[in-house]
Amino acid sequence: MWSRPGQMERRKVALKVFYLGWMYEGFAKQKRTRQTVEGHLHYAILKAKLTPSIESSEYSRGGRTDTGVCAYGQVVSLLLRTRKTEKGQTEIPYTLAINRHLPRSIRVLSWAYVPASFSARFSCKHRVYRYYLPQGSLDVASMRRGASLFVGKHCFRHFCVKSKEDERYERTVDRAEILSSGEGMCVFEVVSRGFLYRQVRCMAGILLLVGEGKRQPEYIAELLSLSAAEKKPGYQPAPPQNLVLYDCVYDGVCFETAPAECERLGRDLAEEHLEKQVEEAVLRGSVEYLGGLCGGV
Amino acid sequence: MWSRPGQMERRKVALKVFYLGWMYEGFAKQKRTRQTVEGHLHYAILKAKLTPSIESSEYSRGGRTDTGVCAYGQVVSLLLRTRKTEKGQTEIPYTLAINRHLPRSIRVLSWAYVPASFSARFSCKHRVYRYYLPQGSLDVASMRRGASLFVGKHCFRHFCVKSKEDERYERTVDRAEILSSGEGMCVFEVVSRGFLYRQVRCMAGILLLVGEGKRQPEYIAELLSLSAAEKKPGYQPAPPQNLVLYDCVYDGVCFETAPAECERLGRDLAEEHLEKQVEEAVLRGSVEYLGGLCGGV
Repeated sequence: MWSRPGQMERRKVALKVFYLGWMYEGFAKQKRTRQTVEGHLHYAILKAKLTPSIESSEYSRGGRTDTGVCAYGQVVSLLLRTRKTEKGQTEIPYTLAINRHLPRSIRVLSWAYVPASFSARFSCKHRVYRYYLPQGSLDVASMRRGASLFVGKHCFRHFCVKSKEDERYERTVDRAEILSSGEGMCVFEVVSRGFLYRQVRCMAGILLLVGEGKRQPEYIAELLSLSAAEKKPGYQPAPPQNLVLYDCVYDGVCFETAPAECERLGRDLAEEHLEKQVEEAVLRGSVEYLGGLCGGV
Repeated sequence: MWSRPGQMERRKVALKVFYLGWMYEGFAKQKRTRQTVEGHLHYAILKAKLTPSIESSEYSRGGRTDTGVCAYGQVVSLLLRTRKTEKGQTEIPYTLAINRHLPRSIRVLSWAYVPASFSARFSCKHRVYRYYLPQGSLDVASMRRGASLFVGKHCFRHFCVKSKEDERYERTVDRAEILSSGEGMCVFEVVSRGFLYRQVRCMAGILLLVGEGKRQPEYIAELLSLSAAEKKPGYQPAPPQNLVLYDCVYDGVCFETAPAECERLGRDLAEEHLEKQVEEAVLRGSVEYLGGLCGGV
């Protein structure tokens, strides 16, 4: 658990990371752009001098998220400098130290000591995603029926974008539900140990067709039972901006939250939410105004 | 009404202009920035070759709006090239021609022939503003009572930011109401022939204090009756992003709308509204998530 004497003492830590992904080119660091969440996160960790390099830190991420996707509870793990000795010193305030170097739309919410063998990717028991759908005239009852058909062990070959040739497509979905979030919004929540590339957006895309009455709920069962030989049906994955990596769940990891930091983020988010509410109302008003002007648009 | 033979034939036209002002540095053109609504509008009118210059076009605007303020129904008037002759040719499709050269967030909604003496500024009978306020825990009944006190002829010296030394502060407010717009939003609508600089934002700022219980509604009557000698009380004008110039009203002006153009804008706005609804829901969700994490933020 400790590094060699004389070197920076490091300990494996998991960080819970929040981000509004709308303005970033996805989570995973890329060579061709600096505008990734992970890029900012690594920069901040290095700036805070918590590790001499990311490469030497056994870094691992709970999930990858596409361009435009948000996360409330992304998790990464890595070796971080530690102050904790047998003498019972208090630990470096990790959240504070890292957040200082992050843009406002990316925040470390909490941290936890984890065993040396821990990996944010491989130790993850469940990933929870939420997909936000404006209810409008969607048939929610049919969507609920459709969503329930995803639950269980299935071949999701026709609910993903192929990423590797030899991939195995079997996945177990533990929960798939349509929740109502008030204010005319419904939320598709799906829980599984692991997902294929773009799987949630594909599931949401088909649920949207079901909600619009363009497909019957049972079509989902049909797609899940299609054989490998059969062609993937033509439909679009739902857009990324509505998707949130809601949480990554681990056994026996107890995240610590810095209350002051948490309160500050709560205030910032509440403020940003108010601004967004106003923008939403101004746009709603403009649609109504235009309807009056043009005779029912 | 007609220009000299041999020149471009022009006729006085009023244009109704919509814009989402959040990303612009106000309506009025400025030398130091290109990011004003009027700057874009003038550029588009010149690009569409509807006048050889703005300076020669008797240009006038219905209202000035601050940085960040939106408008559903701003109006400008100016001499524009015309095709209409005695032979009953159809007119140049002004809205289409100008919109082609505008960013998506600025649109000409409709146009009207107006008399040669018409001025968008001086011919305006009423300006209608709407200020959007997230209801939250605001005391709407008190705000209604407060708003009603603005109606009538008053000295608004303490409800504006001084712009000229010798200004006269008397204005008549024809209507001042708190409307409910659904989805937890209330709207302060105020109608007057003319407003002082930042008057609506000052009125909204005080109404907000009333709604928060920090002032009694009657405080508004007090402020309206303060003499010139008395110091302006310390309060902030409400922020600009919530303000919309809802309409400019004229006698006997009949705006023509291009149905195809109107339909397209309706679709664009409805789409943008959906996106904003999702962002609002994701932020609302994040506030809830954080509340759970930190124990009731």
